[in-house]
Amino acid sequence: MLESNFIHHVFFWLKDPDNQEVKTKFEKALKELVTVETIAEKHLGTPAATNRGVIDSSYTFSLLTVFKNKADHDIYQEHPKHLKFIENCAELWDRVVVYDSESL
Amino acid sequence: MLESNFIHHVFFWLKDPDNQEVKTKFEKALKELVTVETIAEKHLGTPAATNRGVIDSSYTFSLLTVFKNKADHDIYQEHPKHLKFIENCAELWDRVVVYDSESL
Repeated sequence: MLESNFIHHVFFWLKDPDNQEVKTKFEKALKELVTVETIAEKHLGTPAATNRGVIDSSYTFSLLTVFKNKADHDIYQEHPKHLKFIENCAELWDRVVVYDSESL
Repeated sequence: MLESNFIHHVFFWLKDPDNQEVKTKFEKALKELVTVETIAEKHLGTPAATNRGVIDSSYTFSLLTVFKNKADHDIYQEHPKHLKFIENCAELWDRVVVYDSESL
């Protein structure tokens, strides 16, 4: 098992997913965001080249962050870097879906 | 960053999510499933106690698996333990959504 307990996985659908300039800006912002100290592990992604009926590959970027516990996640939510990310990038996305999971 | 490249995150909505007997059976099957050798890292979860508009906490179980690369993921897809999991458990779920992501 991943050592940490709290999984926070975010999927972003950009308004203009084919605009390279926008994508470059968003990637840079994601890379800055994941420097928040309470993040134990992270993965920034784009849809993989898989294709079955149950797979949703319509999103533009994914942000997987793993926290030791919910308290560390809560610090991240209120962290200035997170608030700045939302302020600078919220206008770029059309839709966001978040899945938060704690260990069985 | 997580060391491995390929993220495979699955969300299950069980038909009978309040049935403890079914949930116990499903949990046991998940724990057996994640013993497939090509899985580099894994996390079995249930929805966390977070609640904002963008969060989907309606699923019953989550299965996060991390693979070194797509080839290791493809081996997992065809692995007898995976096929057995689907055969034994598909009748228990109403809906499955998969997100596959590769590193930026």
